[in-house]
Amino acid sequence: MAYSSKLIEQAITEVAKLPGIGKKSALRIVLHLLKQEPIETNMLARGLEELRENIKYCTVCYNISDDDVCAICSSHKRDDTLICVVEDIRDVMAIENTEQYFGRYHVLGGIISPIDGIGPEELNIESLVSRIDGNNAIEEIIVALPSTMEGDTTAFYLTKKLQNSNVKITGIARGVPVGSELEYTDEVTLGRSILNRTQL
Amino acid sequence: MAYSSKLIEQAITEVAKLPGIGKKSALRIVLHLLKQEPIETNMLARGLEELRENIKYCTVCYNISDDDVCAICSSHKRDDTLICVVEDIRDVMAIENTEQYFGRYHVLGGIISPIDGIGPEELNIESLVSRIDGNNAIEEIIVALPSTMEGDTTAFYLTKKLQNSNVKITGIARGVPVGSELEYTDEVTLGRSILNRTQL
Repeated sequence: MAYSSKLIEQAITEVAKLPGIGKKSALRIVLHLLKQEPIETNMLARGLEELRENIKYCTVCYNISDDDVCAICSSHKRDDTLICVVEDIRDVMAIENTEQYFGRYHVLGGIISPIDGIGPEELNIESLVSRIDGNNAIEEIIVALPSTMEGDTTAFYLTKKLQNSNVKITGIARGVPVGSELEYTDEVTLGRSILNRTQL
Repeated sequence: MAYSSKLIEQAITEVAKLPGIGKKSALRIVLHLLKQEPIETNMLARGLEELRENIKYCTVCYNISDDDVCAICSSHKRDDTLICVVEDIRDVMAIENTEQYFGRYHVLGGIISPIDGIGPEELNIESLVSRIDGNNAIEEIIVALPSTMEGDTTAFYLTKKLQNSNVKITGIARGVPVGSELEYTDEVTLGRSILNRTQL
């Protein structure tokens, strides 16, 4: 597309690099900003730059944090015997929102995906191993990774890595989601939900 | 949703103000930026701020421009007898992409929409009238506004406003889009396409 201004072309190119945003959405966003007061654009730009410059990762669990140790890791109210291993901080937020889990977390920062060039050494796996080795209080590791080939590979790798540790390794339950119809559930999930049935 | 960091919360709030982006997409965008090099975020922030600070609107047609007069208005190759009136610069780009129109443009900067508090005085209508009055070369005004109540209202207002000028006022053709099936076309469009049939 031909743009009437180099400035707008440059802004659109940058915005269109963001995930889930194509050239058309980028144009819409940029025109929206032009209709707003300049201060709105400044606040957006500042917010992103400040985040990028000042963000810290918790030195214990690698969650995003304003301090060296995140609020969850420094809380005295959380269960020290449990660590939930997740892919990224979105999963921490999702699990926190359930208000059903009171243990600690460990954020891997991704999952093993050879196709994207992500091997175990790119992830926070070694730190998880030494965290478990250095803390006798930990009794159980809950692997809460996506149910994909990459997620399963990572879970398998973690299990191997931790087999000599004295901790129980569990995975989150797979089954028919609450509120969904059996007939619309895929065969694999439905099959597993029967195999892993629970006592009522 | 509870965020583990004030910085991320602030960045997400700002990103989620953009059109078509909710909290979840904002989180995804922000996490994407965190995975990229800091320079990527800087370039995005710079691009938006520079655009907002330095952008100019063509003093003739109100298209976005790097100079006082845009490339289309300053071109000697365009037809001076035609002005195409559009809602915003996206429409200029869309029409330019057709490579079927070689006249000039006039960007209204919106359409009359009382519900959004946009009346004729918020739009570049007076400047269109004086542009036409001050230039005898102009023979035809093509109104290329959306076929909505607001678009039709604006077109009607323009027609009234320009009825004393010595110019022909036309509207773009409405009909069944090229390549689409008659049976899926709405009744109003199909009805109009029959009324406004053309000689083959």
